[in-house]
Amino acid sequence: MNKRITVLPGDGIGPEVVEGAIKVLDEVAALYGHKFDYNYEKIGGVAIDQENTPLPEQTVNACKESDGVLLGAVGGPKWDTLPGDMRPETGLLGLRKALNLFANLRPVTGHESLTDSSTLRKEVVDGVDLMIVRELTGGLYFGDPKERRQEDGEEAAVDTLSYKRSEIERIVRRAFDLAKVRRKKVTSVDKANVLETSRLWREVAEEVSKDYPEIEIEHMLVDNAAMQLIRDPKQFDVVVTENMFGDILSDEASMLTGSLGMLPSASIGSGGPGLYEPVHGSAPDIAGEKKANPLATIASTAMMLKYSFNMVEEAEALDAALAEVLTQGHRTGDIAKPEDKVLNTEEMTEKVIDLL
Amino acid sequence: MNKRITVLPGDGIGPEVVEGAIKVLDEVAALYGHKFDYNYEKIGGVAIDQENTPLPEQTVNACKESDGVLLGAVGGPKWDTLPGDMRPETGLLGLRKALNLFANLRPVTGHESLTDSSTLRKEVVDGVDLMIVRELTGGLYFGDPKERRQEDGEEAAVDTLSYKRSEIERIVRRAFDLAKVRRKKVTSVDKANVLETSRLWREVAEEVSKDYPEIEIEHMLVDNAAMQLIRDPKQFDVVVTENMFGDILSDEASMLTGSLGMLPSASIGSGGPGLYEPVHGSAPDIAGEKKANPLATIASTAMMLKYSFNMVEEAEALDAALAEVLTQGHRTGDIAKPEDKVLNTEEMTEKVIDLL
Ligand SMILES: CC(C)[C@H](C(=O)O)[C@@H](O)C(=O)O
Ligand SMILES: CC(C)[C@H](C(=O)O)[C@@H](O)C(=O)O
Repeated sequence: MNKRITVLPGDGIGPEVVEGAIKVLDEVAALYGHKFDYNYEKIGGVAIDQENTPLPEQTVNACKESDGVLLGAVGGPKWDTLPGDMRPETGLLGLRKALNLFANLRPVTGHESLTDSSTLRKEVVDGVDLMIVRELTGGLYFGDPKERRQEDGEEAAVDTLSYKRSEIERIVRRAFDLAKVRRKKVTSVDKANVLETSRLWREVAEEVSKDYPEIEIEHMLVDNAAMQLIRDPKQFDVVVTENMFGDILSDEASMLTGSLGMLPSASIGSGGPGLYEPVHGSAPDIAGEKKANPLATIASTAMMLKYSFNMVEEAEALDAALAEVLTQGHRTGDIAKPEDKVLNTEEMTEKVIDLL
Repeated sequence: MNKRITVLPGDGIGPEVVEGAIKVLDEVAALYGHKFDYNYEKIGGVAIDQENTPLPEQTVNACKESDGVLLGAVGGPKWDTLPGDMRPETGLLGLRKALNLFANLRPVTGHESLTDSSTLRKEVVDGVDLMIVRELTGGLYFGDPKERRQEDGEEAAVDTLSYKRSEIERIVRRAFDLAKVRRKKVTSVDKANVLETSRLWREVAEEVSKDYPEIEIEHMLVDNAAMQLIRDPKQFDVVVTENMFGDILSDEASMLTGSLGMLPSASIGSGGPGLYEPVHGSAPDIAGEKKANPLATIASTAMMLKYSFNMVEEAEALDAALAEVLTQGHRTGDIAKPEDKVLNTEEMTEKVIDLL
């Protein structure tokens, strides 16, 4: 198959980890007789510096015309003091919205050889295998009004958390569809004892669940979920929740695996290209030093193969290679123990390619 | 001293743990020559059942006229399907608002003999000593509008996150004042890369910090904070944040100590009575069985002695007795290991009294 991939290296370690992922994609193409064309575009800080906007129109158009989008990371202290609409993150949020990527999939799977580097006890995290399905184009991130105003004679700020029935339905449905091919349990996380949006969320989740009699549904309050993720993460299969809760819980859950440097993500809509990116950020402190762990980005391309290209066999082969790399004990700095030999970004990439 | 305490046992295990705490307060009174008068009122489910409202006016008035309020817990499945304004939680939220209790203090201190029951590794949690200062009368919990509406021809729901400058200032100031007598570090948690309220929050926190040159201020994004609490909790001293973030992070942080059954809280305003309650809920599954751990409620009365009655010596003696109980190995079911002798609520209460 021929596939067009828009590549958005972004800022910090973004370009380095993306470079590794592309090498691996090329190997997959060679092994399975595919052809991947790459189209590099700008987003985030690098786009602000060169084009004076965090999300150039050309980037959006290129993404729309491609079969999948691979992103490194955006942001860094250099752009942190710019006004809201000129921040690297605004580019990422704008792209999610422009491509209507309402479903953010964040699988959290512990690899046994790595659970030593988790701050949680081995028996708690060994065998964790959950998927956080985060709503990505609604809620507090995008609601109107979002502004400064005068209130009782003083400055105030407001953000709006709003959801339409259809927005909740499509994401919950996506979660149930994913649970079907997993362990058949959906935990819907909300704050229904306080929020009106959560009460609507819970109603809709209940309704959707009627269409999936074989799948268990459970409702959990977000404060309790934040606790249960640490207390007993193995109770979870698919966790579905709104944008902000998903942001918080998925970063928390990343600690189960020992390193944020291991976690991939897929952002998908209904049809159209998906966006694939590591959960970690741009890590400006180690940018350019070839120290970054490319595995999360490589695992994100495996999700691209699976969810956007329907190349299931290829995705599984790549996931297997990633697991084998860890089993063989190869480590970048973020997941190394003092006695381990530390590989750089390129060396780690080569190990994956060797084992494909 | 003479003090009037309004007692709100509430639902589930609320009455049992409150009973234990009152016995301990009586012992404190006897030992130090004070007199505590108790005035029992209703809140939550029990108030719904008997007075058809989760927060009777008489309860609010009694609280306002007292020197401190001791609350057990509210809620349970029995009332979960009632409409929003008739839920037990609405009573609690209404009371917080009526007494203007804008500052919720949730100390998280691991007791060394208990860190075995945390799912986190011993070396990560031993010595944790942090205080979450949560804004309690603003944000998503109370913002207007909070409603159902029609949007694009379909049902939608909306909640509003809003903060005035003065609301942020008073809570951040409280955090800095607390940090002064602790390790002199304040971590202000927000989501300034996305939320307008967070950008205002960060501005105000910066301004307030100018008045406290001896205290270090650090800003942290909420997703990162959720991760750092698990990765390295000892980096934190005082954590200050808005209502919803504080709700999530404090429940998460409770796992550092091994059991939610151990954590006290104080909700205070500026002058007026404070409200003291355990962080745990009403645990309807074990209600009436005398299994509940009373230590969080007893520790909450220690906070009442300190923050509302200015009885510092008494508070310290009580905290010392609580620590000694644990050191001696006394355990209720929630914190017991398989080989431990399990005490019931009353037996545990007696141990505290013995050691006072
Ligand atoms: C960079 C930021 C805007 C973003 C978010 O909050 O969605 C990030 O934290 C993420 O989780 O992808
Ligand atoms: C019961 C509920 C409304 C409450 C809250 O969210 O504030 C509780 O979770 C808490 O943290 O005290």
